[in-house]
Amino acid sequence: MALYSNYSRYYIAVDCIIFGYDILEKDLKLLLIKRKMQPARGKWSLAGGFVKQNENLDEAAARVLLNLTGLSGVYLEQSWTYGDPERDPGARVFSVSYSALIKIQDINRELKESNGAHWQSMSNLPGLIFDHDEMVMKALTDLQMHIKIKPIGFELLPEKFTLVQLQNLYEVIHQRPIDKRNFRKKILSMNLLEKLDEKERETSRKGAWYYRFKRERYEKFRKMGFYFDLDVY
Amino acid sequence: MALYSNYSRYYIAVDCIIFGYDILEKDLKLLLIKRKMQPARGKWSLAGGFVKQNENLDEAAARVLLNLTGLSGVYLEQSWTYGDPERDPGARVFSVSYSALIKIQDINRELKESNGAHWQSMSNLPGLIFDHDEMVMKALTDLQMHIKIKPIGFELLPEKFTLVQLQNLYEVIHQRPIDKRNFRKKILSMNLLEKLDEKERETSRKGAWYYRFKRERYEKFRKMGFYFDLDVY
Repeated sequence: MALYSNYSRYYIAVDCIIFGYDILEKDLKLLLIKRKMQPARGKWSLAGGFVKQNENLDEAAARVLLNLTGLSGVYLEQSWTYGDPERDPGARVFSVSYSALIKIQDINRELKESNGAHWQSMSNLPGLIFDHDEMVMKALTDLQMHIKIKPIGFELLPEKFTLVQLQNLYEVIHQRPIDKRNFRKKILSMNLLEKLDEKERETSRKGAWYYRFKRERYEKFRKMGFYFDLDVY
Repeated sequence: MALYSNYSRYYIAVDCIIFGYDILEKDLKLLLIKRKMQPARGKWSLAGGFVKQNENLDEAAARVLLNLTGLSGVYLEQSWTYGDPERDPGARVFSVSYSALIKIQDINRELKESNGAHWQSMSNLPGLIFDHDEMVMKALTDLQMHIKIKPIGFELLPEKFTLVQLQNLYEVIHQRPIDKRNFRKKILSMNLLEKLDEKERETSRKGAWYYRFKRERYEKFRKMGFYFDLDVY
């Protein structure tokens, strides 16, 4: 008799909470699909899939993300595992949720459209199937905590950005205004931004300097025991 | 044909990283067992078990903890989910790890002994089966982060404790010394400790005042937007 054969086996899925930031609309968005299988076919859903025999959880999530967006190598982190016996009316399915942070402009639009995926504003989400609303709220809470202590906000911005754009992102994620002076002082004091020799001129006549996140320097600092800290009010 | 029947099903287990703090030895410990089933029978292992059909993940972890220690209603939080195809040589098993923080003195000793469980110092752990070492390291890293922002250290201490004992706990978890003056200033300024009318007199002639964590006050403060902050150096 095979080992463990007295025990039950279950389906295991991954579901991806794919965050994107719309820099013009100053809006945090979620990439959602209309579910293609029963039960709940046609309802709004996170992008997900069942874990295959030859892949681990990270690989399953990366596959789902790649198939929907054409993106790989982006920020994709395990968030939480859901296993209520009744969570999926189709069968007992455990789901491991993953948070992805992507740059909206990098997505493969044809893939996105052929998959029927849509960006929906976090401030105006439709109801999602099963426990997907809970997955999204948990991922947002984690994102609010993690952008204080890790430089992951830059995953959501273009390579070059202004300090106003960076502050806007933090304000949208934290869902509250942030003091400009305090924000600039904190972010600049960490010495992780490079001021570029170029200005953004579309939103004001005077223009605002573009900056770039110095990832290499952050990695070096981190190994020396430095902590990213952007806990701003 | 049943829904999803084209997909594979797998075993799902929970594994509990059970932390206890030995206040006399100033030592963070882990409750380990010798595994009772094949493969790897007799090897050091976290306490775990397969998820049953009628229980969710939290319930499965609570059952494992209760069976080993007699404790329920203690701090028990999902930590991370592990799913490498080769992680368990017996079969494809996904495991959701849980961190438990318990008071060593509260445990049911008979149950512990009949289960063959042992407290092992975190500073001198035996090698554990499968990916259990990784589970422990992840849980420790999370604990180090969480005791800065949540009052969970008190879960590991007796109801009454001295400030020295509280500081020792933080030092042991962070694995580094902490400045006494700074620590006292920070913890007392949060107004979450009640000074009792009683001294601990075993470790010094002068004695040290006992304190108690005011959980009700913390819950009230938290609802008003207060953040616990004990990020000490």
